[in-house]
Amino acid sequence: MIIDRLIQAIADMQNPTAVGLDTTLAYLPDDMRAEVRDCKGAADAILEFNRTLIDHIADIVPAVKVQVAYYEAYGADGMRAFGETLSYAKRKGLFTIADCKRNDIGSTAAQYAAAYLGATEVGGRERQAFPADMLTVNGYLGTDGIAPFAELCKAGEKGIFVLVKTSNPSSGELQNLKLEDGRTVYECMGDMVERWGADTVGTYGYSAVGAVVGATHPEEAAILRKRLPHTFFLIPGYGAQGGNAQMLRCCFDGRGLGGIVNNSRGILCAYRKIGGSYYDAARQACLAMKADLLSALGAICAK
Amino acid sequence: MIIDRLIQAIADMQNPTAVGLDTTLAYLPDDMRAEVRDCKGAADAILEFNRTLIDHIADIVPAVKVQVAYYEAYGADGMRAFGETLSYAKRKGLFTIADCKRNDIGSTAAQYAAAYLGATEVGGRERQAFPADMLTVNGYLGTDGIAPFAELCKAGEKGIFVLVKTSNPSSGELQNLKLEDGRTVYECMGDMVERWGADTVGTYGYSAVGAVVGATHPEEAAILRKRLPHTFFLIPGYGAQGGNAQMLRCCFDGRGLGGIVNNSRGILCAYRKIGGSYYDAARQACLAMKADLLSALGAICAK
Repeated sequence: MIIDRLIQAIADMQNPTAVGLDTTLAYLPDDMRAEVRDCKGAADAILEFNRTLIDHIADIVPAVKVQVAYYEAYGADGMRAFGETLSYAKRKGLFTIADCKRNDIGSTAAQYAAAYLGATEVGGRERQAFPADMLTVNGYLGTDGIAPFAELCKAGEKGIFVLVKTSNPSSGELQNLKLEDGRTVYECMGDMVERWGADTVGTYGYSAVGAVVGATHPEEAAILRKRLPHTFFLIPGYGAQGGNAQMLRCCFDGRGLGGIVNNSRGILCAYRKIGGSYYDAARQACLAMKADLLSALGAICAK
Repeated sequence: MIIDRLIQAIADMQNPTAVGLDTTLAYLPDDMRAEVRDCKGAADAILEFNRTLIDHIADIVPAVKVQVAYYEAYGADGMRAFGETLSYAKRKGLFTIADCKRNDIGSTAAQYAAAYLGATEVGGRERQAFPADMLTVNGYLGTDGIAPFAELCKAGEKGIFVLVKTSNPSSGELQNLKLEDGRTVYECMGDMVERWGADTVGTYGYSAVGAVVGATHPEEAAILRKRLPHTFFLIPGYGAQGGNAQMLRCCFDGRGLGGIVNNSRGILCAYRKIGGSYYDAARQACLAMKADLLSALGAICAK
């Protein structure tokens, strides 16, 4: 199961961090932006930034999360940079999470599943449009909208993270409402995630169908950690959004397993705070984040 | 308000239909597929199919809905075809709906809003990545995930459709659950949509923040029509998914206004059923659908 590979990489590096490549032109150093004239130029500059950054962190961080919205804003050129960023990260040994929050009815969800986790036949050959190890998805449509992704997970090489309790301030408006049966909406979504992942539980007890659980909501995270024993968490909200290591301790189990923490702006833009090159500053920020997480988690033990 | 423009076009043509350009290679006639060797070739063939189809329906149909998943499956080339399909439809006078069901936290949602409804500054110029009149979005994250889209709606030229009650068989798993306060989840989402649209109500009483309400669930649609008097509906599920004109009568008000009905496969693949060229068959299917809808709705009166 793919989730075992992610957990093993986290344990090997003693670092449950995913670097968020939410790379927009405004985050690049001035000299990398000066020559940009059009969307192709923007996409090229962003890709160069990502590649160099990946080169400087691939030995200390197990995964990247690439947020597609920042690439879609540059049109088809941006999408090329998105796909090439995923491919480059993969070649450098990183685990790749495409953060796209895709969702639709079954027949359409199958197209998304093919685009990010599978392949599409063209001219007698299978083409991988945007090859990722795992993809974020939105479960508002229920089981048949998730099934095409979950099917691909069963083969062992792919996984998904379903939005359960998101990190943003308004997330409670719907997600924290109480259902007639006493559960909250986010608990109900979490229960569906456990069910969708039941066929793909790996060696460490976690399935290939994970959940997005924000670091900014520790109370809900603690409830979900207990309630969803087989669900691995993708945890956004650390850093710029206000989450810290103590707040997200509750997302992990006694072995220090159970989640991976994303940080985007805090790493991409570290050079603006601590100076130096963007890639050296990013590396320093990754090492500081690793130390911060381990201070709360203790050692990560994948046995 | 943009919604007035859509309603006026529907009334002028006496046709509340959006043609769904969910165009995948498999839907194309054999001769258009024979030469396709790679994703660029696939994207070119799909774009040619779309353009010719648009040429043959632009005088009888007010809108197209372009489902992005079918284009993402062909990578960056597919996304180019997606953007060019939107631009071409616009040039031919059609109202364009980008069906992307995007959703994220505020800062990321702002990137999606720029990509589909706004613009992104590159090299001192504003670039429109995938220019659409309206965009479908998913409201699971609550108000701050919708705000960047709703802000653009207020300027008057753009609109969104929020998923409320989707057309797929599993949609009730979450959406039909009862909340403690007696509302269902879909009613609660609908109430948020009314609120998000309150600032953008146009001449006909409908706002620029619409709702996706499936034709396959007439009972829920009838409840929503009453509950959400200012919310215009995008109605999928007609045709291949099993919805018919009588089932979706309840989505409309006494003037025959209040929604636009999507049909994708039933129009794109009409040539396989009725023979002839794909574009003539698509035109025939559009005329048949128009007659079917009007038989249930009566005349559409935008006064």
